[in-house]
Amino acid sequence: MPYLEISKKNFFHNHQMIAQAITPKEKKGIKGEIAIVLKDNAYGHGIMEIASLAKEVGIKTAFVKNLQEALSIKTFFDNIAILYPNSLPNKNALESALKIPSISFCTPSLESLQEYPSKTNIELKVDSGMHRNGIDKTKLRDAFELITTRNLNLKGVFTHNGYGDDLNSAFYVQDMEFLEIKKEALKLCEHFKIPRPKFHSLSSSGALRASNFNASLPKELQDDLFRIGIAFYGYNCSSPNTLKLKPIASLFANKISTLKLKKGTSIGYSGVSMLETDGIVSTYDIGYGDGLFRVREGMELYTTEGYRILPRASMDCISIESDTSSVCIFNDVSAFAKSFNTIPYEILVHLHAYIPRFIV
Amino acid sequence: MPYLEISKKNFFHNHQMIAQAITPKEKKGIKGEIAIVLKDNAYGHGIMEIASLAKEVGIKTAFVKNLQEALSIKTFFDNIAILYPNSLPNKNALESALKIPSISFCTPSLESLQEYPSKTNIELKVDSGMHRNGIDKTKLRDAFELITTRNLNLKGVFTHNGYGDDLNSAFYVQDMEFLEIKKEALKLCEHFKIPRPKFHSLSSSGALRASNFNASLPKELQDDLFRIGIAFYGYNCSSPNTLKLKPIASLFANKISTLKLKKGTSIGYSGVSMLETDGIVSTYDIGYGDGLFRVREGMELYTTEGYRILPRASMDCISIESDTSSVCIFNDVSAFAKSFNTIPYEILVHLHAYIPRFIV
Repeated sequence: MPYLEISKKNFFHNHQMIAQAITPKEKKGIKGEIAIVLKDNAYGHGIMEIASLAKEVGIKTAFVKNLQEALSIKTFFDNIAILYPNSLPNKNALESALKIPSISFCTPSLESLQEYPSKTNIELKVDSGMHRNGIDKTKLRDAFELITTRNLNLKGVFTHNGYGDDLNSAFYVQDMEFLEIKKEALKLCEHFKIPRPKFHSLSSSGALRASNFNASLPKELQDDLFRIGIAFYGYNCSSPNTLKLKPIASLFANKISTLKLKKGTSIGYSGVSMLETDGIVSTYDIGYGDGLFRVREGMELYTTEGYRILPRASMDCISIESDTSSVCIFNDVSAFAKSFNTIPYEILVHLHAYIPRFIV
Repeated sequence: MPYLEISKKNFFHNHQMIAQAITPKEKKGIKGEIAIVLKDNAYGHGIMEIASLAKEVGIKTAFVKNLQEALSIKTFFDNIAILYPNSLPNKNALESALKIPSISFCTPSLESLQEYPSKTNIELKVDSGMHRNGIDKTKLRDAFELITTRNLNLKGVFTHNGYGDDLNSAFYVQDMEFLEIKKEALKLCEHFKIPRPKFHSLSSSGALRASNFNASLPKELQDDLFRIGIAFYGYNCSSPNTLKLKPIASLFANKISTLKLKKGTSIGYSGVSMLETDGIVSTYDIGYGDGLFRVREGMELYTTEGYRILPRASMDCISIESDTSSVCIFNDVSAFAKSFNTIPYEILVHLHAYIPRFIV
């Protein structure tokens, strides 16, 4: 059986690093709440397992993808925001979620504000330059009017700064744009007699590079929380990675069967791999059908014990020159991400939900 | 909400093509049973949906990955073989599965033969040259001894020909190897007074290229069934693709929000895409967090309506120059497979199980 081990120690370490970076002791005035992003099964790490660890370190706010994720962790947090409430709709789940006061619904459009009954908690998403989800800033007044007339409960106004990983001015341009949005939102709050909502705009890379973020602004214009996802899981995709984050997930697989083979023997589909000496080859029970990326000819990927994963990987297994009873496929996905020309997030989040996750 | 439509018409068409290729009317003597491979959530298509279609066309035998998959489709088939019974073990599921006479357990090693109680249905896997899973052919007698002394019920002896996609002699070399294994198995059956098991070795590509497969052999040495997976789903990875198979899955996504943007505007992470004219850009609710591969800079992938999927894709959404309410991401994954330098299987099987599947 393949399984993921989640290191509690590394999670706690990452939390400490994040807390030190975002709310350094020497700047007591500039504190934002650390919220955790648990969407997409906690980036593939297991939403229940990560929610329990987050609760243990005192995290009060979580962001999830859909209704089902929100309901699954309802007992863990004071605030749960559903980023994509329509991505997996279900009438019963919606009715349950609407009754839970800690749950908020993110609304990326004027139309979506009209989907919810009176008193629903709303997190209004505004576009600040990434031009992805969210209302145009020129429609902020229309949104506030709808919130007022429909008697919705505005908990937050937020955006997503899509330039956290890029060490150029685009990050700051978008940040200035959100500052204008925050100013406008405060005016509208006053006009419509709506309490000030929480403001937030940064995910891991943005929050970690901006430890003095908004420090010069009046308190009411500062961001109130930071949505930390990948950093909790031990990766920082922006360079330089000054924080010593530690990956929390290790993927293991168990042996299926073993063959003693002669030098020159071909292995696997199309016989792509060939033994250079007499040896022992075993199969292990993880494959691309489990969501792992398919190791193919030309790739050099090794288990943490140093065994090469022989191309081509199969849908349900991989072959390795060893007969050890289990192998650790990775304790850091950076090599996989590099081989597949992608980012750690994608490798992790593709792992199927049925793979058991254990906290160690 | 993203969703997959499964075309019943195309599934029926593929079944007809497969049946014509494997059991052509002009060769009435040479018939093998068409079994369906439903492992890994039916290669991502939805195991329940595909099982119901397979039953409708009269398929009697299915191959699944694990215990849970076997139990989920227990009412659909006369024979269900679990290819990797230890890949997701669960004591209760094992006890349930052992009580169901239609379920068999594939055993890839002598050790695994010792895991099951008396009277368990066994499909013995033997290595015939792919050097992946299965016992070495020199251990066939040991296996038969264990099967006898442990009073197991030998339903099948099988292998996997890993060269179906390769138009060279390796396919036939492996086939000859399995012929020797079948001969030896028949001798052992006689010796141990075990009824002749079913023999099988070919999956889609092998079965479809070998329409006169084993035709010259005596009936008792012919393969009894063919394990057809990807061909049912509409793909044939070997060339030439003489069969006109039709992909059965189409992936759709719905609009999240829309922005009117000016010429030159950057979109998405790091602003990788840029509008060449004033335009409308919307986001749609599928991303790499749903198991779709991440469209990144340099890639040109289009929805079936002809809209370019703008790099970079996000974890939970993609951007497209359109404000149509929904888009079809693909009705054939070949372009995705090509862009990501992989095979259709991998694109399909990565799609997460929570995405709803509908038969149309």
